[in-house]
Amino acid sequence: MRSIDTISLDDARRIIAAGEDRAQQIGQPSNIAVVDAGGNLVAHVRMDGAWIGSVDIAINKAFTARAFDIATADLAENAGPGDQFFGISGSNQGRVMIFAGGIPLREDGRIIGGVGVSGGSGDQDQTVAEAAAAGFR
Amino acid sequence: MRSIDTISLDDARRIIAAGEDRAQQIGQPSNIAVVDAGGNLVAHVRMDGAWIGSVDIAINKAFTARAFDIATADLAENAGPGDQFFGISGSNQGRVMIFAGGIPLREDGRIIGGVGVSGGSGDQDQTVAEAAAAGFR
Amino acid sequence: MRSIDTISLDDARRIIAAGEDRAQQIGQPSNIAVVDAGGNLVAHVRMDGAWIGSVDIAINKAFTARAFDIATADLAENAGPGDQFFGISGSNQGRVMIFAGGIPLREDGRIIGGVGVSGGSGDQDQTVAEAAAAGFR
Amino acid sequence: MRSIDTISLDDARRIIAAGEDRAQQIGQPSNIAVVDAGGNLVAHVRMDGAWIGSVDIAINKAFTARAFDIATADLAENAGPGDQFFGISGSNQGRVMIFAGGIPLREDGRIIGGVGVSGGSGDQDQTVAEAAAAGFR
Repeated sequence: MRSIDTISLDDARRIIAAGEDRAQQIGQPSNIAVVDAGGNLVAHVRMDGAWIGSVDIAINKAFTARAFDIATADLAENAGPGDQFFGISGSNQGRVMIFAGGIPLREDGRIIGGVGVSGGSGDQDQTVAEAAAAGFR
Repeated sequence: MRSIDTISLDDARRIIAAGEDRAQQIGQPSNIAVVDAGGNLVAHVRMDGAWIGSVDIAINKAFTARAFDIATADLAENAGPGDQFFGISGSNQGRVMIFAGGIPLREDGRIIGGVGVSGGSGDQDQTVAEAAAAGFR
Repeated sequence: MRSIDTISLDDARRIIAAGEDRAQQIGQPSNIAVVDAGGNLVAHVRMDGAWIGSVDIAINKAFTARAFDIATADLAENAGPGDQFFGISGSNQGRVMIFAGGIPLREDGRIIGGVGVSGGSGDQDQTVAEAAAAGFR
Repeated sequence: MRSIDTISLDDARRIIAAGEDRAQQIGQPSNIAVVDAGGNLVAHVRMDGAWIGSVDIAINKAFTARAFDIATADLAENAGPGDQFFGISGSNQGRVMIFAGGIPLREDGRIIGGVGVSGGSGDQDQTVAEAAAAGFR
């Protein structure tokens, strides 16, 4: 047996609230999702007016950030044609997202979950995700 | 053109909070999900300790309740072997749930969304979903 | 943040070894799989001569046992026509197995993973899974 | 009738053990999977701390290496935009992996299985897979 730390629902709500604040600041309604250490969804919100197609993307960005312990923006840089992880987006039944907006959640240096944001441009999703992740620390 | 009413994120949060209260009363950690008039997820929470297999089920009970404008418990009674809707659970890419815990959300008699609960027995899910739906009205 | 216990690879190997011993005793080559607290695969073996179609089933029985914190044999009793969970096997992208052979793994009363066995009759799968689970305790 | 050689569970364990040794040497927890001549999983391990998103990838790299009797790193060179096998990763229900870490297993020059590794960079996965394959010979 081994023990691991993971994200509680209270954590997830704090993370999402921080993301929402940032999304409102930049005027971009967003989907924000948080997964735990096992990659399983803890909480999700779709802000009024946010894309319905982004529900799936936000949840899967959060999954990806935890599944590979990497920001999806960083994974993206290794997943293009000719890169070492080109094709990874075809794995895990299409749940691997390779564009900005997914960030691992860290506690004392260990990754214990992930947050995913989808709703705007890559830059917008990234800044909202960063604000959300900062809400955890 | 026509206008429809739908569920806002504020509504979803109020609905989920009412469901959480009831889940805590009965001591059954639950997944609670709310969809809007389009059947698309507005918000979801997994209470600490709730089943991870119920994330999918709660979201899809909410979808089902709106997709067919019927409580999933009522759909279940028409979806068994020999019933008029037997096999309906194979449609919509496996998103149709035919057991208790999904309830349409009504405003002035019209259905404008759905709530889905998964985490306990059918009776437990149903009572949490009813409390959640009551939180909307 | 909250801490949870989960299954290590060493645990999984001990669990699988205990299951293999029992499978050999009864002369039934089996697939044996172990998942952690997040429902994610830790280890799997297919004994020589075991069904290839049972790879998927063993892994998903282990998933199911953890996803709903219940033995799949017990879930089966509530998942038939007219039962409260009829239709649950259509959720989670077909990963929910509703026949014997999946057992939750407990430590101090808490469920921290699951083991799944597939290869023989329901009774055979169940006895191998029970022996495997006993190898953990 | 014809006879084929294939991988036994004992072989798979020896292969995995060799891979684990190498993974520990380079300090990269990995998923390691072995498939037989039929492309079906024989055994899998996820070392403690290895990516959960790599379970699927390791198994499918092993499948790919046997499915097309080619190292996935070599397949990758023919599967980019403009290459002769561009799009092959969309076949076989997303099971074809086109990046390094999958290697065919050979006996007397014939391919009788495959090993797949996922957990680190392409170079890390490749060196672990090579060590694993060498453990078979």
